[in-house]
Amino acid sequence: MTKALVPLAEGVEEMEAAIIVDVLRRAKWEVITAAVTPQPITASRGLRLLADADWATVHAADFDILVIPGGGGGTQQLMRSASVLDTVRAFRRAGKPVAAICAGPLVLQAAGILKGIRATCFPGVAADLTAAHHVSERVAIDQNIITSQGPGTAFEFALALIAHVDGPQAVEAVAPGLILPS
Amino acid sequence: MTKALVPLAEGVEEMEAAIIVDVLRRAKWEVITAAVTPQPITASRGLRLLADADWATVHAADFDILVIPGGGGGTQQLMRSASVLDTVRAFRRAGKPVAAICAGPLVLQAAGILKGIRATCFPGVAADLTAAHHVSERVAIDQNIITSQGPGTAFEFALALIAHVDGPQAVEAVAPGLILPS
Repeated sequence: MTKALVPLAEGVEEMEAAIIVDVLRRAKWEVITAAVTPQPITASRGLRLLADADWATVHAADFDILVIPGGGGGTQQLMRSASVLDTVRAFRRAGKPVAAICAGPLVLQAAGILKGIRATCFPGVAADLTAAHHVSERVAIDQNIITSQGPGTAFEFALALIAHVDGPQAVEAVAPGLILPS
Repeated sequence: MTKALVPLAEGVEEMEAAIIVDVLRRAKWEVITAAVTPQPITASRGLRLLADADWATVHAADFDILVIPGGGGGTQQLMRSASVLDTVRAFRRAGKPVAAICAGPLVLQAAGILKGIRATCFPGVAADLTAAHHVSERVAIDQNIITSQGPGTAFEFALALIAHVDGPQAVEAVAPGLILPS
């Protein structure tokens, strides 16, 4: 069973958080949300979430993939956490996939892992994604780093993670129940 | 400012709940989530949510529109609440829009307001939507009753509510930031 670690912080984009957690769990992944700021977490448009664990209690090395949701405020909080940035680097050093959506790729950049990587992000923050080779794609995959653009690409992002780790047949098991645009 | 009431119950589909709340708030609507079951609410894939209020404390007549998210378990809980069914009927009698997505239209049916109405729902529960004139559309609008199919139609559903109440120019203000499929 694939174990995914999803850091959540005050200001996280609630649609991205919910879609990542829900779609990956539909694929039978073990998904643990970890609160980097005090609980409950107030998301970007005021929805309040309770994470599964506090970030400080999580043993990140136990996980197979790190998935970072967006939201401007949440991303700022994650970038300020030395522990989160260390964890991004540790996943990368271990050759594990690292994923981020919306403003989330800025966290990967702050950790120093995006140099020369083809990466996408929320169009409104693309000018800040200076370290990467920025591409305007809905989902970009390069060297085990998966990035995406925003709330409306979150379904495609989550399904791309499932395809990347488990293969396309795993996507076929999940996608029909989502009723995505054809 | 349009005031939307969103009942939440154990088993609610978290993607639908988050998308409804977030997109409507982006349109400057006042959105109040109200917990019909004890808080925190554990959604269908385990994400835990805190509602803005408990259902019993909410004065439903103050709201302009009722929006019911799906999730099989959440829908069952809402159908068991006489107060929720009474509220559905009260909105309808007052000529206010009533909306539901996924399994949520079954709540409208249980309240008795779907007779002869063109309505859609999650394909997996369509056989149970016997009172309505069921249509396999992503969003259906008939006589101020707006219905939709599931998580992947939730963005279109929320934007349809905004268009229905505020007009298409209000959608133009919100849609670009969502990065929806073209």
